Amino acid sequence: MTPLRLPRAENRLCHPDRLFPAAETTRAIARRLYDSVAGLPIISPHGHTDPRWYAENEPFPDPAKLFVVPDHYVFRMLYAQGLRMEDLGVPTRDGSPVETDPRAIWRRFAAHYHLFRGTPTRLWLDHAFASLFGFEERLSAANADATYDIVARALAQPAYRPRALFETFGIEAIATTEGALDELNWHAMLKASGWKGRVVTTYRPDAVVDPEFEGFAGNLAKLGAITGEDTATWSGYLEAHRKRRAFFKTYGATASDHGHASARTANLPKADAERLFAKVAAGPVTAEEADLFRGQMLTEMAKMSLDDGLVLQIHPGSRRNHNRAVFERFGRDMGADIPGGTDYVTALKPLLDAVGNEPNLTVILFTLDETAYSRELAPLAGHYPALRLGPPWWFFDSVEGMKRFKEQAIETAGFYNTVGFNDDTRAFPSIPARHDVARRVDCAHLAELVADHRLDEDEAADLAADLAYHLAKKAYRL
Amino acid sequence: MTPLRLPRAENRLCHPDRLFPAAETTRAIARRLYDSVAGLPIISPHGHTDPRWYAENEPFPDPAKLFVVPDHYVFRMLYAQGLRMEDLGVPTRDGSPVETDPRAIWRRFAAHYHLFRGTPTRLWLDHAFASLFGFEERLSAANADATYDIVARALAQPAYRPRALFETFGIEAIATTEGALDELNWHAMLKASGWKGRVVTTYRPDAVVDPEFEGFAGNLAKLGAITGEDTATWSGYLEAHRKRRAFFKTYGATASDHGHASARTANLPKADAERLFAKVAAGPVTAEEADLFRGQMLTEMAKMSLDDGLVLQIHPGSRRNHNRAVFERFGRDMGADIPGGTDYVTALKPLLDAVGNEPNLTVILFTLDETAYSRELAPLAGHYPALRLGPPWWFFDSVEGMKRFKEQAIETAGFYNTVGFNDDTRAFPSIPARHDVARRVDCAHLAELVADHRLDEDEAADLAADLAYHLAKKAYRL
Amino acid sequence: MTPLRLPRAENRLCHPDRLFPAAETTRAIARRLYDSVAGLPIISPHGHTDPRWYAENEPFPDPAKLFVVPDHYVFRMLYAQGLRMEDLGVPTRDGSPVETDPRAIWRRFAAHYHLFRGTPTRLWLDHAFASLFGFEERLSAANADATYDIVARALAQPAYRPRALFETFGIEAIATTEGALDELNWHAMLKASGWKGRVVTTYRPDAVVDPEFEGFAGNLAKLGAITGEDTATWSGYLEAHRKRRAFFKTYGATASDHGHASARTANLPKADAERLFAKVAAGPVTAEEADLFRGQMLTEMAKMSLDDGLVLQIHPGSRRNHNRAVFERFGRDMGADIPGGTDYVTALKPLLDAVGNEPNLTVILFTLDETAYSRELAPLAGHYPALRLGPPWWFFDSVEGMKRFKEQAIETAGFYNTVGFNDDTRAFPSIPARHDVARRVDCAHLAELVADHRLDEDEAADLAADLAYHLAKKAYRL
Repeated sequence: MTPLRLPRAENRLCHPDRLFPAAETTRAIARRLYDSVAGLPIISPHGHTDPRWYAENEPFPDPAKLFVVPDHYVFRMLYAQGLRMEDLGVPTRDGSPVETDPRAIWRRFAAHYHLFRGTPTRLWLDHAFASLFGFEERLSAANADATYDIVARALAQPAYRPRALFETFGIEAIATTEGALDELNWHAMLKASGWKGRVVTTYRPDAVVDPEFEGFAGNLAKLGAITGEDTATWSGYLEAHRKRRAFFKTYGATASDHGHASARTANLPKADAERLFAKVAAGPVTAEEADLFRGQMLTEMAKMSLDDGLVLQIHPGSRRNHNRAVFERFGRDMGADIPGGTDYVTALKPLLDAVGNEPNLTVILFTLDETAYSRELAPLAGHYPALRLGPPWWFFDSVEGMKRFKEQAIETAGFYNTVGFNDDTRAFPSIPARHDVARRVDCAHLAELVADHRLDEDEAADLAADLAYHLAKKAYRL
Repeated sequence: MTPLRLPRAENRLCHPDRLFPAAETTRAIARRLYDSVAGLPIISPHGHTDPRWYAENEPFPDPAKLFVVPDHYVFRMLYAQGLRMEDLGVPTRDGSPVETDPRAIWRRFAAHYHLFRGTPTRLWLDHAFASLFGFEERLSAANADATYDIVARALAQPAYRPRALFETFGIEAIATTEGALDELNWHAMLKASGWKGRVVTTYRPDAVVDPEFEGFAGNLAKLGAITGEDTATWSGYLEAHRKRRAFFKTYGATASDHGHASARTANLPKADAERLFAKVAAGPVTAEEADLFRGQMLTEMAKMSLDDGLVLQIHPGSRRNHNRAVFERFGRDMGADIPGGTDYVTALKPLLDAVGNEPNLTVILFTLDETAYSRELAPLAGHYPALRLGPPWWFFDSVEGMKRFKEQAIETAGFYNTVGFNDDTRAFPSIPARHDVARRVDCAHLAELVADHRLDEDEAADLAADLAYHLAKKAYRL
Repeated sequence: MTPLRLPRAENRLCHPDRLFPAAETTRAIARRLYDSVAGLPIISPHGHTDPRWYAENEPFPDPAKLFVVPDHYVFRMLYAQGLRMEDLGVPTRDGSPVETDPRAIWRRFAAHYHLFRGTPTRLWLDHAFASLFGFEERLSAANADATYDIVARALAQPAYRPRALFETFGIEAIATTEGALDELNWHAMLKASGWKGRVVTTYRPDAVVDPEFEGFAGNLAKLGAITGEDTATWSGYLEAHRKRRAFFKTYGATASDHGHASARTANLPKADAERLFAKVAAGPVTAEEADLFRGQMLTEMAKMSLDDGLVLQIHPGSRRNHNRAVFERFGRDMGADIPGGTDYVTALKPLLDAVGNEPNLTVILFTLDETAYSRELAPLAGHYPALRLGPPWWFFDSVEGMKRFKEQAIETAGFYNTVGFNDDTRAFPSIPARHDVARRVDCAHLAELVADHRLDEDEAADLAADLAYHLAKKAYRL
C-alpha cells in the first residue's frame, strides 16, 4: 500500500504544478506562494459530511459507496450521457431493485471516466485516488478491477477510518449541518468519545421556517415539544428558535444556514409579523405569504445573531428537484437542482435596513447567479459592515468559477470582505482536494497580480495565507 | 492565380500560429493538437447556405455580391459608422435604386476595412482572401482595385464554382435550412444530378407553427394542400407535420430547427391543445395564446422526434428587426436583430417533464444570452439525457465568445454534452475559416488545460478530434 | 521634494511594466504600444471635478481632504470593514461632530491601506503618491506621519495648485458637470481669468427633468425665471431647455448627461406629451408617470441634439442611497449606490425609432450591468449609426472591468463604435493614474491581439492612439 502523501500529492495523476499559470515567471511566483500555504490546516466552516462517521468511526463500506453512489456530481454526469441511475446503485424511493454489486458500479464508472474531462470532479477524484490510494494512472475500463481492489483493501485498514482520515487531512475544524429539530445525538456521542477532532454543528432551520416544507405543521409542533415553548404564538416560536440556537451552540455551532428559493428578506412591524405567523401556523398559506414569512425569518435570525453571535449564511436560488421523474423515483438531491437568478439588491434591503450597519454581525452571501458578483454582491459587501461574500458555490466551486469570482468581485469588494474557502461537501475524501484546488487557484491568481505589479509578493503571501486559513477562521469565529 | 491552399492557409494575412496562446510551451501544445485535426473533413450540421448554389453550380456573380451585399455582419458595421446601406448595394423593398456597380461597393468596403479590426468577420475574411485568392496584404483603399480584379477573375474559373469549392473546402456534409412548405426543388435537382457532395435539408416549420408569422392562415391551408391532411383539425395538423418531416427526411434531413422569440414550451392535455389549435387556426389570437401555441409545438416536435429520430434544435431569443426604419426600407435579416435574455430553466420544464429523460432524443439548445451558460444551460445539459448544448451562436461565434462558452459551460456540462461546432452561415466562402477558427480556439483551450495539468495531452488530442468532427457527426446523426 | 515625473512614473511603487501581460513576447509588444501613447495629452470628456478649483486656483487644504474625506471609493471600503465614517471626517447632515484632525484621519487610512489590495483605488493612489509626491514605499501605519508631512508640504507649493497640476497632468480638455439651473459662475470666472486651460461644462438637467427629484416644482419655476420662458407649458419648458443648452454651450459644453434609474425612453405624440407634462408640472405624479416623463425627455434631448450638436450621454441603473441609515446621517454619494440590471434593448427602442438612424447624432451608452455588454450594447452599437459605447463605468473602471468590456463588446461592436476612456471622477489627483491604467490595459489587450495574430502591430499602434486620445476627442467633439 502506498503511504498517504497528503496534503500535497505528487505523482503522474497529480502534477505538482497543476493549476498554475503557464508563463514561467508567473508560475514560479505561484509555486512560492503555494508552498507557503500548502501545509496550513484545513478550516471547513460549512459542509454536509455526516457526523455519524466521526462518532462511530466505522470503515467506509466499499469503493462504489464512497465515490459513486452518494455523489450527485458523479451520477448526474453519467445519467446525462444515458446511463441509468439504477445501474449506478442509486436507491429508489419505492425500494424497487437497483444494482447492488459495488464492483459492477465501479466498472461502469471507470469505463465512463472520460466524461469528467475538464470538470472539477475529475480534479477531486484524481487527487483522492493519487494521494489516498497511490494511483499512478487515470481510471479506465482497463484498470477498473485493479483499482477497485486497491481501494477496497485500503478501506479495511484503520488508517482509512473517518477519524484517521480527518487527522491525515489536517482538518483543524469542520462544520456539519443539522436541522433545527435534530437531537444532535451523533454530536453528543462524539463529544462523549474524548476524540480531539473538532466537529461542530450548524443551525439549519428550513424545516421550521419554510411554510412550504414537507410536514411543516408537525415540525412546528415538534419544535414546541422539544423546547417547551408555545410555538403556536409568535413570541413562543421565536423563543423556541433562541433555545435551539443555544442548544446548537453547546455542540460548537458558530453559524446558522438558510437555503431559501430567493434571498428575499422582510422586516415587518411586530403586529404584522404576529398576524403573518398566525396564518402560517394555522396553514395553508399562499405562495406569497410563505415567501414573505421566510423573508421575515431571515431578518429575525439576523437579529438573534446580534445577541448570540451566530454567523448567518444565505444560500439562495437553487430550483430544487427540477426533474420531476427523477424526483419521483429517487427523491431529493439527485443532481437535478438547477440555479436561478437572484436580485440581492432588492431582496436584502429590509434586512440591511434593520441590521446591515452592525459591525459585529456577519452575514455571508452565496449565489448561484454569477451575474450578481460584480453587479450586486461586490458593491454590497464593499459597503455594508455586516456583509461578507462566501466563496463560489456548488457548480462554481471550480477552477474557472473561482477565477471569475476573483476577477469580478475583488476589485470592488476587496479581499477582506470575502471569507476564504468553503468546501460545502458531503464527499469526505474530496475535502483535501477541494481545499487544494482553492489554494492553487488563489495562488495562481495572486501570482498574476504580482507578475503584473498590482501587488508586491510579500502582500500576496499574506493574502495566500488569509485566503487559505485565516479569513474562514475569523469570519466563522472558529 | 495563387493555388488554393485550404484548409490551412499560411501567408502574411494568416499566420500559422494565429489564435494560439502566447506562452511558448502552451503554444507548442496547441500547435500539436491543431496539426492533428486541421485536415479533418468539415461537418456543417446547421446553416443557411442556398441549396440552389449546389444544384445549379453557377459561378458566384462578383466580389461585392459574394462578400458584401448579402453579409449582414459586414454591412451592419459599415452602417453603424455612417455608410448608407444603399451605397453598399443592399436592395430596397420598394425597389428604389441602390448602388449597382460592384467595384464601387468593393471600394467602399475596402476603404473601411479597419472598422473590422478585432471582429470575427475580419478573421473570416482574411482567411478567405488568403486561402482562396492568395492575398498577401490587408484589404485597403490602396489595393481595392487590384484585389477586386483578383477575386473577379477567380470567380470566373471552374475551381470557384460552388461544387468545386465544396470539395476544396473538404466538406463531408452540410445542412441547409428550409421552411416546412418548401418543395425542396433545389434538393431534388441536386439529388438528380448525381453529384456526390452531401447536402441535406433541415425542417424549419416556423411559418406554420408561429401564429404571428406573416401569412400564417394561408400557410396552414397550404400545409393541408401539400400533405392532403385537414389542417383545420389538430390531428390533421399534427399528421401534416409528420408527413412533411418524412418528406424532408427523404432529402437527408436529420434535424428540425425552431427560432422562437423565447424558449417557452408547453405540454397541454390533448383537449386543451385541440381547443388552442382551433383558436389559432381560426385566428386572430392574443400574444399569449400565440406564445403558448409555439411552446406546445416545441413539445409536439420533440415527441415526433422520438418516432422519426430528427434532432430538435432550439434557437431562441433574437429580437428580430429591432430597427423599424431599416426593416421598412430593407426588410428582414438586415443586421438589426438584437439578443434578448432567456430563462431556459422555467421555459423548458414542460418539454423536459414530457421527454427530457429520453436517452434516444437529442434536443440541442442555443442561446443569445451568455449569462445562461453557467447558470442554466450547463446544469441542465449536465443532467438531462435528452439535452445537448449547441456551440456559441451568432454574435458569440467568435474567439472570445467561444472562450467564454468553454470556461462557463464545460466544468458543469463536460465536453460530451456539447455538439462540436456549427457555422450557421449563409456566407459560403467563410465556412472553412469559421471551422478553422473553432478548431484553433478549441486547441488553444485544450492546450491550456494540458499546460496546467487538468488534462493529459493524449486526452486533449481525443477531445480536439471530437470537437472538430465526431461530436457534430454523432449528435446530428450525420 | 521629488520632481514631478508624470505621466509615466517609474519607482518602487509603480513598476514600468505594471498591468502588462506576463508572457515575455506579449509584454514586449505592450511596452512598445504603451510607449507610443504614454505621452499623449489627456482628454477627459466626462467627470465631476469642481470648476471652482480651476477658477480660484487655491491650494488643496490637506492630505486627508485631498485623498480620503471626499472619495467614496476610499471610505466605503473602510466603512465595510468596521471603521466609522465620522472617524474619517465625513461630514454629517445634521452637523454632529466628526473627526477634524486631518493627520488622525490619514493615520487611520494608512493603517488600513492593505484593505485596498487588488482594487483600482490602490493603483490610482500608488500612482499619485509615487508620481506627485515621490513615495518609494507602500503607505502603512509605520510611514503615516512621514507621508502626511510630505504631502502636506507639497500641497503648500505653487506647483500643486489646481491649474499647475492641470498643466503637469497634460490635460488638453476636461469637462465638468453642472445642473441645468447652475449659473456657471465658476466657469465664467475661469473664462474671464485668461488662463488657457480648457475646462468645459456639461448640461445635466436631472433636477428639472425628473419629477421625483427633490424640489422639482421649485426647480421648474426657477428654470422659467432664468430663461424667461413659461415652464408651466410644454412648449415653454422645451424652449427653456433649448436656451439653457445654448447657454451651456457658451461655456464650452459639447454634451449633456442623464442619470436616470433606468434607460427607458419614450416618444409620445405631441398631445400626449403635453398632457403628461401638465400633470408633471402640477404634481404629484405616479411613479409610472414620472418614469414615462423621464423617458420622454431623453428623446426630447436627443431631438435637441440634432439641432445643437450636443452629445447625449446616458448613465442609467444606479440604485442610489441604498443604505437608509447612511443616507439619513451623511446624505448622497456616500458609497452606498448599488448597480441594477438594465434592459437597454426594450428601453431604448422609442428613442432609436425616432433618431437612431441619424449619423450626425451621438448617443453614448453606459451601464452598471455588465451582462448587457455582449447581449445588448455591442449589438445595438454595432448597428445603429447614432449609438456609441461609453467605457466601463464606476465599479467597472478597473483592470478586470476593462478587460471584460474589451472581450465582450469589441468583437461585435468593433473598436470604432466605442469612445475611448472617461475618468468620470471628482478625485482630481487620480486623473493621470486613471488614464494611465486605461492606456496600459488597452495596450495589454492590443498586445494580446497582436501576439495571437488577430491584428498587425501597426494597426494596434493606430488603435492604441485612437483609444487613448482620438476616439474621445472625436466622439465628444472636443
